[in-house]
Amino acid sequence: MSAISFARGVPSPDCIPVEELADCARAVLERDGCAVLSYGPAAGYAPLREWIARRHGVEPERIVLTNGSLQGFVFLAQRLCAGPAAPRVLVEAPTYDRPLKLLHELGAELTAVPLAEDGLDLDALESALRRGRKPAFLYTIPTFQNPTGRTLSTEHRRTIVEIAREHDVLVLEDDPYGLVRFEGDAPPTLFELDGGEHVLYSSSFSKTVAPGLRVGYLILPRPLAAAVEALAVSTYISPVFLSQATVYEFLRRGALEANLARACELLCARRDAMLAALERELAGEARWSKPEGGYFLWLDFAGDIDAAALLNAAGERGVTFVKGSDFFACDGGGRSSARLAYSFVSPEQIGEGVARLAELVARPLASAAA
Amino acid sequence: MSAISFARGVPSPDCIPVEELADCARAVLERDGCAVLSYGPAAGYAPLREWIARRHGVEPERIVLTNGSLQGFVFLAQRLCAGPAAPRVLVEAPTYDRPLKLLHELGAELTAVPLAEDGLDLDALESALRRGRKPAFLYTIPTFQNPTGRTLSTEHRRTIVEIAREHDVLVLEDDPYGLVRFEGDAPPTLFELDGGEHVLYSSSFSKTVAPGLRVGYLILPRPLAAAVEALAVSTYISPVFLSQATVYEFLRRGALEANLARACELLCARRDAMLAALERELAGEARWSKPEGGYFLWLDFAGDIDAAALLNAAGERGVTFVKGSDFFACDGGGRSSARLAYSFVSPEQIGEGVARLAELVARPLASAAA
Repeated sequence: MSAISFARGVPSPDCIPVEELADCARAVLERDGCAVLSYGPAAGYAPLREWIARRHGVEPERIVLTNGSLQGFVFLAQRLCAGPAAPRVLVEAPTYDRPLKLLHELGAELTAVPLAEDGLDLDALESALRRGRKPAFLYTIPTFQNPTGRTLSTEHRRTIVEIAREHDVLVLEDDPYGLVRFEGDAPPTLFELDGGEHVLYSSSFSKTVAPGLRVGYLILPRPLAAAVEALAVSTYISPVFLSQATVYEFLRRGALEANLARACELLCARRDAMLAALERELAGEARWSKPEGGYFLWLDFAGDIDAAALLNAAGERGVTFVKGSDFFACDGGGRSSARLAYSFVSPEQIGEGVARLAELVARPLASAAA
Repeated sequence: MSAISFARGVPSPDCIPVEELADCARAVLERDGCAVLSYGPAAGYAPLREWIARRHGVEPERIVLTNGSLQGFVFLAQRLCAGPAAPRVLVEAPTYDRPLKLLHELGAELTAVPLAEDGLDLDALESALRRGRKPAFLYTIPTFQNPTGRTLSTEHRRTIVEIAREHDVLVLEDDPYGLVRFEGDAPPTLFELDGGEHVLYSSSFSKTVAPGLRVGYLILPRPLAAAVEALAVSTYISPVFLSQATVYEFLRRGALEANLARACELLCARRDAMLAALERELAGEARWSKPEGGYFLWLDFAGDIDAAALLNAAGERGVTFVKGSDFFACDGGGRSSARLAYSFVSPEQIGEGVARLAELVARPLASAAA
């Protein structure tokens, strides 16, 4: 039985413009080889910083490029959580599991703010800010969220920015999927609404160019950018300029838009295949999000389905996903939920994989009582 | 007045084989683009791990590639220093300043073991091991040490390995310069003498291929390699495969030896120029090491020269170096010493720079009394 992964939140290899990137890598080495192959500024390859700065309308000094955006999160969290007392951090429930793990390791006290259908629950956010110590920051993924695929409405975005100002609290907006939109109008980012005073912005080229190049970036107020750059110097002296310069060359040639259109078309067909398969196979057995972009959707099973038991059973039938509880800071969340990634598998595999899941859901062994 | 940097311990751009690396980058993307541009194993690009494993006669699973060797040091130190109590680490006095800073930040209690003319003072090492808690590890750079340029004799290497076994203590052998040898026979590495049971080995391609590619590696016992790989996953998911694959292609083509020969010839001429200039300008005013390779030599001034004051005065005359005290874990060391790097500057600049330093040494303003 062929393996079908709904677990891997990574682009299909078909999305990656291999030949054009081979050209770009060679071109930048021929044009700017000495700079690309020497030590240099820890905040990254200057032409790419400038490109991003123009795109976001900020000074280049506010941009820090890192070896993937997770590395940027590590530096930023280390910096914002520095100090003698255990820091408090607000996170969405559910949220991306890697930052949760890193915050745990930094000794942070995590306060989970539930997600509603249209993103962060604002009453819960206000309440979390009124109770307890001032948090080091709020970590949020407002667009095509990992793991739910949900997007925060424009109105709620405005409110979050107001709340951040009122409580003088920093918000880290993680936005790797924003450009991977299949339909509908993009709401403004929190960063755009705020102007970057209380909102720190993180994104990457993993979903728009290639994940293996590991080019992520932060947009920060200048003193914080300098502090993160100092951590980068202490950790690796310089980042890998070759991949940053290759991304820059790709952008400079104007290749981003066509590549993004191609990736979105491919991913949209997969999302459609997954929604159709779910409707066909699991209507009445579960509810799911209907994302307008990104890689993921979120499934809440009806009844007493135990996602961990289902995952075990599915593994034997060659299907994997990530169980919902992995995305919760505190025990008890996501027990009957699952993150399904449609990014890595073909529409045919999606249909087959959902059908295999549905068969298991119909059996008693996947229930919590089993 | 032209600026002359004896501070930058980096290769001259002339050492970097730009055109060949441009070819290599393109070739690997054309041959293996999908793997290079996707997420993959956090321990690094498999063909390069295998190449290094063959070279060192170990299993590939023991090799972890990192974005520069400093990043590997960070992971390894985090792992070896984990635990509730502040770890104790033995370091050479003097030693490379970046690891010192990182160990300080990890809260380590540092015990400095002095360097003799032929490397680590073995009596002091034994004494440090007999007194106090068992250290997490001993950090040493046995060949062309940074900052002194000194090399540990084969006999002393054997003794260190025996001491490590007797006291059951780990040794981290940092060996970025070993292949950059101008003359004389290379002693065996501690790793070779030990077989890799008590000795952990670190090296990189920064000095042999190109520093900006940021390809470092560790050779570790398998459980420790797995633990470091887990830290890498948590920090950046995958390293940058493009630079690792480019280095691999360079090695696969057999280009390393010729490039190394070219770099050594160029660096040897610089070392010779520096030794000649020191003999001409500073005989009687200072003593210095006479390295058979690497990037650095170490200057001990006679009398009461204050290296910090000299550095200030030299800066006004366009000459920089790193003052000796930066390389000591504890206050008081290296006050009248300096690290001079000959790697980055031409033989003509070296003669001119040493002459400017000598003029200042002859003046009272550089003395500690000033």
